[in-house]
Amino acid sequence: MTDVPQRRLQGTVRVVGSGLLGASIGLGLRQQGVDVILEDVSPAARNLAIDYGAGRVGGADDHPTLIVVCVPPDVTADIVERELAAYPEALVTDVASVKVAPLRELEKRGVDVSRYIGSHPMAGRERGGPLSARADLFVGRPWVVAGHDGIGYRAAAALEDLILDLGATPIEMTPEEHDAGVAVVSHAPQVVASLMAARLRDAPDTSLGLAGQGVRDVTRIAASDPTLWVQILGANAGGVAEVLRALREDLDGVISALDEPEHPGALRVLAETIGAGNAGVSRLPGKHGQSKTYRQVIVMVDDTPGQLGRLLTEMGEIGVNLEDLRLEHSPGAQFGLAEVSVVPEHEERLIDDLVRRGWTIAGA
Amino acid sequence: MTDVPQRRLQGTVRVVGSGLLGASIGLGLRQQGVDVILEDVSPAARNLAIDYGAGRVGGADDHPTLIVVCVPPDVTADIVERELAAYPEALVTDVASVKVAPLRELEKRGVDVSRYIGSHPMAGRERGGPLSARADLFVGRPWVVAGHDGIGYRAAAALEDLILDLGATPIEMTPEEHDAGVAVVSHAPQVVASLMAARLRDAPDTSLGLAGQGVRDVTRIAASDPTLWVQILGANAGGVAEVLRALREDLDGVISALDEPEHPGALRVLAETIGAGNAGVSRLPGKHGQSKTYRQVIVMVDDTPGQLGRLLTEMGEIGVNLEDLRLEHSPGAQFGLAEVSVVPEHEERLIDDLVRRGWTIAGA
Repeated sequence: MTDVPQRRLQGTVRVVGSGLLGASIGLGLRQQGVDVILEDVSPAARNLAIDYGAGRVGGADDHPTLIVVCVPPDVTADIVERELAAYPEALVTDVASVKVAPLRELEKRGVDVSRYIGSHPMAGRERGGPLSARADLFVGRPWVVAGHDGIGYRAAAALEDLILDLGATPIEMTPEEHDAGVAVVSHAPQVVASLMAARLRDAPDTSLGLAGQGVRDVTRIAASDPTLWVQILGANAGGVAEVLRALREDLDGVISALDEPEHPGALRVLAETIGAGNAGVSRLPGKHGQSKTYRQVIVMVDDTPGQLGRLLTEMGEIGVNLEDLRLEHSPGAQFGLAEVSVVPEHEERLIDDLVRRGWTIAGA
Repeated sequence: MTDVPQRRLQGTVRVVGSGLLGASIGLGLRQQGVDVILEDVSPAARNLAIDYGAGRVGGADDHPTLIVVCVPPDVTADIVERELAAYPEALVTDVASVKVAPLRELEKRGVDVSRYIGSHPMAGRERGGPLSARADLFVGRPWVVAGHDGIGYRAAAALEDLILDLGATPIEMTPEEHDAGVAVVSHAPQVVASLMAARLRDAPDTSLGLAGQGVRDVTRIAASDPTLWVQILGANAGGVAEVLRALREDLDGVISALDEPEHPGALRVLAETIGAGNAGVSRLPGKHGQSKTYRQVIVMVDDTPGQLGRLLTEMGEIGVNLEDLRLEHSPGAQFGLAEVSVVPEHEERLIDDLVRRGWTIAGA
């Protein structure tokens, strides 16, 4: 549904690690006609990814121009070192979700990093296994290129070609900038979601019955895989701790205020906490990088196949673009509530036209 | 789109406070043909709600059978006391989002609470003003009835009639159960979201550019109104503090583990934190009260009106019911990613049929 850009990458790419990311890279490159060698510590996993079309078995005659290491964070430095030694002509990158630790580890070992540059595709989902792989996994996503002083701009060109061939957008930052960034927008939110969700573990059923969309959103990512997250948090420990320490300081203030709500200044602390949250969340970039406020209209939708489709098709007929959509199922009811977000200029017309078409508006 | 149930409530209802909740109650009752008197400390706000169709001005001859106090938490007890005194035949309820504090305050003042019973509609949105009111605001939502020893079952019958007339589902619990429940599923998540979002306030733009759906979900409710939340948190301070104190204890453990990730047991603490979050989030009731796991399929959708509708209509044709849906817009791209949740049995068929119909699957 999008134009396939012209292939940029030349030569053979060797992908080490055929899980979700490795196999998706292989699939995406194969779709561009790039020759891809797949490797994995598990021959079964590698063969599965090869059967899936993500590449081929390598041989002694292969001379890859680019090697992409797609293994867990705790073995990334080991494999990068091994690949640099085994293929003295190739550029080596990795896709681990931390960037300082692998580079420091390589430097500590005295590895020449003039052919190594770390990277991190912000591919959203952390679900494992080659069977989850998709050629389009990276399309439209940012892909961080974490340059360092030990590698020249031209030496890293093949990595940028790879990123563009996969439909992603290269974003250059230092390993430190990257790790500080993911600490605050990914790793700390994961911890916070998990800590909040842990409170639900022993809550009575009656309490859980009152749960609305708010707590569901706050805790959604708490369903993440512990094994992977232990590695990520361990490898970015300092940055995450820094964010969490600042959060704990604010949390202490909130708890003190709640312990003595009659105390002068207690309510001010609470107001400042919510206000600081207002200011923070408003900084998140919106759709297409804009920071824009939409209006929400809640429409009742029968809980049968195709009904939501009918609603959105009719929104299209009305000529109103959907900016976001959330579904909420009413407990015990045979219908759901669809919260559609539209630009403010379209809100009134949308409501009028939907009502005229027989839809019930349950809120705006 | 749902059957309108037969009206149950008899007599006149007096609604005090004509903001979102009061005006919505008025609109909903008027739709059932119930006589509604509207009152507000601001005559302008009252007149606006009356113009909107939410009720009429009261007179000296009115003898309401039920009075619904829809004012901010900090003045709820005052107004309930006043209404009990002014209308000695009426049942009085309130809709404040805390239930222990108003009852305790009334008891402390020696008010006879045999005609007072608190309640709380879980109406989801906290957006203010009569212009946001909707007759359907409560349809399908739980509405807590917080009974107490000082009022008999039959005396409270009119409240249950009101709830059913508005299409909501009455849920009985004690004020203590209610406040403990909203502390853990609403008030503490609000604080946690605000504290996390506050970290984004001073983060560099480069960090924010890496933000994905996770941090957006965790911090979405951080956009809530500080004025309202100060009152809610202040009125449920003890319950919220208890949840946050337990969270802080776990947070301290995480920070210690991150400070010394090489220390024996540090990784175990991190794994247990993520694991406890897994256990907690899995307890949130799913659709129709079931706790069920769905499969997610990500489909690329052109960012033009009607395209998402076409997708969901085709899902209806394929005969697969949509359990949940999330939209994600790729930065800079002219298409979005629709993450549709379906029961596991339908996943494979959905993917096959969508691909056959020309859709691009970007993940599963």
